[in-house]
Amino acid sequence: MKVDGKHYYAIWKHPEDIAKIQIIDQRHLPHRFVVEDISSVDEMVAAIRDMHLRGAIVIGAAAGYGAYLAAREASQEDDFDKAFAERCCALKAARPTAVNLAWGVDRTAAAVGAASDKNEKIHAALQEADDIALEEIDRSQRIGAHGLSVIRDISKRKGGEPVNILTHCNAGWLACVDHGTATAPMYAAFDAGVDIHVWVDETRPRNQGARLTAWELGQHGVKHTVIADNTGGHLMQNGMVDLVIVGTDRTTRNGDVVNKIGTYLKALAAHDNGVPFYVALPSSSIDWELERGEDVPIELRASDEVTTIWGEAEGEVRCVRLTPEGSAAANYAFDVTPARLITGLITEEGIAPATEQGLREQFKRD
Amino acid sequence: MKVDGKHYYAIWKHPEDIAKIQIIDQRHLPHRFVVEDISSVDEMVAAIRDMHLRGAIVIGAAAGYGAYLAAREASQEDDFDKAFAERCCALKAARPTAVNLAWGVDRTAAAVGAASDKNEKIHAALQEADDIALEEIDRSQRIGAHGLSVIRDISKRKGGEPVNILTHCNAGWLACVDHGTATAPMYAAFDAGVDIHVWVDETRPRNQGARLTAWELGQHGVKHTVIADNTGGHLMQNGMVDLVIVGTDRTTRNGDVVNKIGTYLKALAAHDNGVPFYVALPSSSIDWELERGEDVPIELRASDEVTTIWGEAEGEVRCVRLTPEGSAAANYAFDVTPARLITGLITEEGIAPATEQGLREQFKRD
Repeated sequence: MKVDGKHYYAIWKHPEDIAKIQIIDQRHLPHRFVVEDISSVDEMVAAIRDMHLRGAIVIGAAAGYGAYLAAREASQEDDFDKAFAERCCALKAARPTAVNLAWGVDRTAAAVGAASDKNEKIHAALQEADDIALEEIDRSQRIGAHGLSVIRDISKRKGGEPVNILTHCNAGWLACVDHGTATAPMYAAFDAGVDIHVWVDETRPRNQGARLTAWELGQHGVKHTVIADNTGGHLMQNGMVDLVIVGTDRTTRNGDVVNKIGTYLKALAAHDNGVPFYVALPSSSIDWELERGEDVPIELRASDEVTTIWGEAEGEVRCVRLTPEGSAAANYAFDVTPARLITGLITEEGIAPATEQGLREQFKRD
Repeated sequence: MKVDGKHYYAIWKHPEDIAKIQIIDQRHLPHRFVVEDISSVDEMVAAIRDMHLRGAIVIGAAAGYGAYLAAREASQEDDFDKAFAERCCALKAARPTAVNLAWGVDRTAAAVGAASDKNEKIHAALQEADDIALEEIDRSQRIGAHGLSVIRDISKRKGGEPVNILTHCNAGWLACVDHGTATAPMYAAFDAGVDIHVWVDETRPRNQGARLTAWELGQHGVKHTVIADNTGGHLMQNGMVDLVIVGTDRTTRNGDVVNKIGTYLKALAAHDNGVPFYVALPSSSIDWELERGEDVPIELRASDEVTTIWGEAEGEVRCVRLTPEGSAAANYAFDVTPARLITGLITEEGIAPATEQGLREQFKRD
């Protein structure tokens, strides 16, 4: 989507140097917009490991382009297969729990394996990486189109008055390649001229809403207001939210949604006030093996994400301490929103009810 | 309660100089513990206005001691009554919306008015201010005793395992004179040897939980863990919270509770998971004139409390920016928790159901 009036992806090929990939280094947002050149597998590993980019979908694309760089480097070695395999291993190990990382590397490696000589292997790798990125963009756009129909209906019912959408965390284009998942319907509505306004939960402790979602929406020109995570319930009680759209890290086959900590609280408030609560997701994030959200282990992250915070002062990004020295802190990263609180799952294939039957029918699975 | 092993109030008479009042300057917590001498009405006005102390109950006590300082200063003037009245006006104007401020000044002024000569007036003012402070301490202690019975029952049911209590914001002894309201049952349980552990919501945007409640509990020796405001729902889903106790700014006569923004979300989660949700309050905060929570206007505070945050870095307290420069922010300070979500109201007279009938019976009003 747009940054300073120009269209960007979260990852793309360098326009003048075929040996380089470019990414937005998200660590500096929202205070500085930094484009980083990635010229080697080592640099791509560092970018993934140190979270210059984050979000399952963009990590899948980075895996593909990383495997392309691996093919280029391996072509300079005597034993291509050994050199390529080593580099693919390094890429996959950059963030061991990111499912899309191994998937993107393996898919690109398969294309490389099917090609005959070194030049063809490099070409096949680039083609596959491009395909991954383009497929993700297409999927996000289709999620956007299905979500747009929901927003348009509300807009019509309100006689064109602004549609107020609340979102939590960043399921935006920075976490995908373009458009995003939860944000895709918002960008689709904005680009179609539907008047919308977005309430952005700051999303402590890592503040992805205040840092990334607010920046994305602002750069693209979408009206938005940042709020403390405590605020959404009050807004819903007072008719100031027309619908909620969030993303998800994993959806179990009964329709339970595992997403950023605090999502459950917003779903409770939406349910209590009759506000529609939608979850936007690519079907790849549905876990057909797991029956219920309670089956997903919840990551307990470092407590210093709670006891401290990063912000900008006098042109520098600094970390400040928020709590007394002796106080413990606990940092659960996700929670489970039960399917009973979810109005619908906005997928690339359409809007499915959050039930096992609804998902099976949508995706034609027995 | 205790600070560095010594018992403190939030406001008290200087032990060696009868012309001075001392307070804890809460602006520096949790990073520094600062005791401030208040030697004049002007200094007390500044302390109230600039929030060196905050919380309805301690403001009532500060009003009383402020009127005492006013009587001392007026006794040096030719026209005592005029000088005293002017100073009382200045005190009342320090924070126009604080009901306890005018109440504390008027009550002390009435005692001054009933006394005959200057010395007697000064003496009467000090006596009245002391009475206000002691009555508040007594009320907090009685709230603590009633709440203790609830905690003790849970402790017994758990066979002495730690009772996990979740609280939001700071309804602690810093906001009262001692003991607090929501914290009073916790201190009573701790002092009685009941094993408890407190989950402390950080309470964005002003972080009174992370800054004040965590500091209070830690200084007194109570086990506690700071969490992002997003976390409580997940904890309750997983049986990690035995009860919730919060304070309130105002309770309407139907039992609706107006408290710090985000309280409603925790009450929803408690209700959804069968966790008892209690509100601790002195009966003075019951507004018998208002029927329902929706009748209370909700304060919209400055947006920079959301876009920035204060914290400590390298020994200095700094303000850092969290959001993009162009993003708006909204800062609703309170929300309404409907009576239907509340298990009971812990008052100095006992635990009342959150209903009009329950409150009328508890306080013997027709």
